[in-house]
Amino acid sequence: MRVEILAVGTELLLGEIANTDAQDVSQGLSELGLDVLYHTVVGDNPARVRQALELALSRVDIVITTGGLGPTYDDLTKEMCAEVFGYKLVMHEESLERIESFFTKLGRTMTENNKKQAMLPEGCTVFSNDWGTAPGCAMEKNGQHILMLPGPPRECKPMFRYRAMPYLAALSGGALHSDWLRIFGMGESAVEDKLRELMEAAVNPSVAPYAKEGECLLRVTAKAETEEAAAAMTAPMVERLKNELGDVVYGVNVDSLEQVVVEKLRAAGLTLACAESCTGGLVTKRITDVPGASAVLLGGVCSYANEIKAGVLGVNKQILAKHGAVSAPVAVMMAQGVRRLMNADIGIGITGIAGPASDDTNKPVGLVYIAVSRREGEGSVTFVRELHLSGNRERIRLSAASNALNLLRKLPV
Amino acid sequence: MRVEILAVGTELLLGEIANTDAQDVSQGLSELGLDVLYHTVVGDNPARVRQALELALSRVDIVITTGGLGPTYDDLTKEMCAEVFGYKLVMHEESLERIESFFTKLGRTMTENNKKQAMLPEGCTVFSNDWGTAPGCAMEKNGQHILMLPGPPRECKPMFRYRAMPYLAALSGGALHSDWLRIFGMGESAVEDKLRELMEAAVNPSVAPYAKEGECLLRVTAKAETEEAAAAMTAPMVERLKNELGDVVYGVNVDSLEQVVVEKLRAAGLTLACAESCTGGLVTKRITDVPGASAVLLGGVCSYANEIKAGVLGVNKQILAKHGAVSAPVAVMMAQGVRRLMNADIGIGITGIAGPASDDTNKPVGLVYIAVSRREGEGSVTFVRELHLSGNRERIRLSAASNALNLLRKLPV
Repeated sequence: MRVEILAVGTELLLGEIANTDAQDVSQGLSELGLDVLYHTVVGDNPARVRQALELALSRVDIVITTGGLGPTYDDLTKEMCAEVFGYKLVMHEESLERIESFFTKLGRTMTENNKKQAMLPEGCTVFSNDWGTAPGCAMEKNGQHILMLPGPPRECKPMFRYRAMPYLAALSGGALHSDWLRIFGMGESAVEDKLRELMEAAVNPSVAPYAKEGECLLRVTAKAETEEAAAAMTAPMVERLKNELGDVVYGVNVDSLEQVVVEKLRAAGLTLACAESCTGGLVTKRITDVPGASAVLLGGVCSYANEIKAGVLGVNKQILAKHGAVSAPVAVMMAQGVRRLMNADIGIGITGIAGPASDDTNKPVGLVYIAVSRREGEGSVTFVRELHLSGNRERIRLSAASNALNLLRKLPV
Repeated sequence: MRVEILAVGTELLLGEIANTDAQDVSQGLSELGLDVLYHTVVGDNPARVRQALELALSRVDIVITTGGLGPTYDDLTKEMCAEVFGYKLVMHEESLERIESFFTKLGRTMTENNKKQAMLPEGCTVFSNDWGTAPGCAMEKNGQHILMLPGPPRECKPMFRYRAMPYLAALSGGALHSDWLRIFGMGESAVEDKLRELMEAAVNPSVAPYAKEGECLLRVTAKAETEEAAAAMTAPMVERLKNELGDVVYGVNVDSLEQVVVEKLRAAGLTLACAESCTGGLVTKRITDVPGASAVLLGGVCSYANEIKAGVLGVNKQILAKHGAVSAPVAVMMAQGVRRLMNADIGIGITGIAGPASDDTNKPVGLVYIAVSRREGEGSVTFVRELHLSGNRERIRLSAASNALNLLRKLPV
């Protein structure tokens, strides 16, 4: 079945926000195996919304609208959708109660105009909204479907995934399950090259790659009678992909490298301290993005100036002078120094040249050393890796931080 | 004049990327005072691209396409645009030379298919591409215009700003100048409330607000015969807005709070050290985002664990026990401690509860203390601010970091 995504909102046409709803919904439709033929954006203008709906219904089977379900006079998506199908809007009592209790919970009084949000097309399938006030809905006429979702991305995304996707999966009589493999250290095109035949042959479950901020994701989606049956179909494919790709796969259905690192160290009862130079605290920041990181991370030192490397971390001044701040021995001494300073089990040291300019040694921009030092009884073991990264300052810093997290992930515990 | 933005690219319909080109172009069109009526996205399909172009030409005066200008067989935007206007594609020698020299500079040989990128509609205005290989162009027929821009956002954005915007400004016989005021500490709606009358009355120059990551931006745009004349018209409005809003305006035509802080401290010859707890290194990271930050920042300590606050920063253990880690005296001692540890002119200390859970004291999530300590001769002066921030963990951390940078910005030097 062919789909068009119709976003309603003048703020999109003014460039105030990007249409990330269309991206989120498109990703989900691709999981469902549905073809998206068009994205359209129109402003909060009744005539143009109506024309856009009529055009969409002339060329696709399913129209998914985002935005325009709120309480104000310029929220008119529902009115126009009901009109083109010739349906009346009626008060949906359960939705009204939900909206009232939403305001009660916030300790606020519901204003009269909010009732408008509970007016829904007669006979529609209601999508209750657990992430905001405006419910969504789906309606059908002569085999065509219009689904309406709220506009704010933090509502649209879960409303699509937990309300619209089951509705769409049921249209073709089934349920869906997806697993996501997260990959670091192998780019999207390398993954595609390696898996081309497998991916082309995989129909149910299907396998699709995505690139995201220096990482690669693989989605495995199966369709079956029930979600449990679909999950049973993805599991062997996930195992097969993990075997094909090896340890570049850092997790299945996890959020991030930093989450995997925090969980791994927590499970092993190990504490961590970070010494960062070119990454300026980015590794520490990313680890503390994970709720509960305090069980693992004792702290970090950003040693931007050489005096801090020497004075706080105890990096030998002669080595600094001889090898320069961006060097393997300095990374090693940073990792060892911060581990001792904070009395941690593991210390990590990162020094490099993020650019745009080099330092006074003329070493190349993108040169980065990462050392990991681990306590072993009374002694310790430390290793260091040299990397040559490319891209601008931001990209080199992001990549250096991800590589550091990946070394921690692969550390034997 | 009415505008439609037509993006060509199957990757958008698959949800692989968001249509940020449409956002960037829309913002610029709003600066020009042109009305955007539609955004449309179609895949790399000749028939649908052609239909979408014909539809757009039936309802607007100017069509701006993004994407589909590259060297491969599925890049077909130019071919379809030339077809609907009935123009031939001809080899543009200057563009061909530019593309060839692009490859020469990279030390690579240009493959034959790249020549396709230099085929342009006869009689078009060529937009030379300094950010990639594919040139853009504009063509006119019977008062209607089609402008073609490359798809990659890092090319589309400058190509629009430096090539398409002057072309569009000249259509109505003039040139344009915009200034951007950056505001921290007053939200978009408060700014709108305060300036409503002024903004409604302002036509040339016009004034428009934008919200961005906890900050507010005001754009002041004037149109005149020349850019210099337009700039002379925006200047008094910028002064007036600065006077109306006071010191929440942290800069005009600057990139970020951190850039302003680095430039201010560098000009004053002052050095900085950061002690962070709840922000986990985010302030340090943001300062090191600014190229040349090393002239100002000596380093930072992320003191996540209480032992680090005491052992590394010298925070008094009895005060930690009595007041808790999230308290004004601890923030003060963190700021003083890191200033002394790193022998810096200024120390900043941040401690708070970012959530989702509170600490063992049950203080509220969002409570943050920020202290700034400054060396004064043999002594020092330190102040501390208590904040109650709202939102999720990510938002509280971002807001705490921005507030810390804003305190540094406002520090008398």
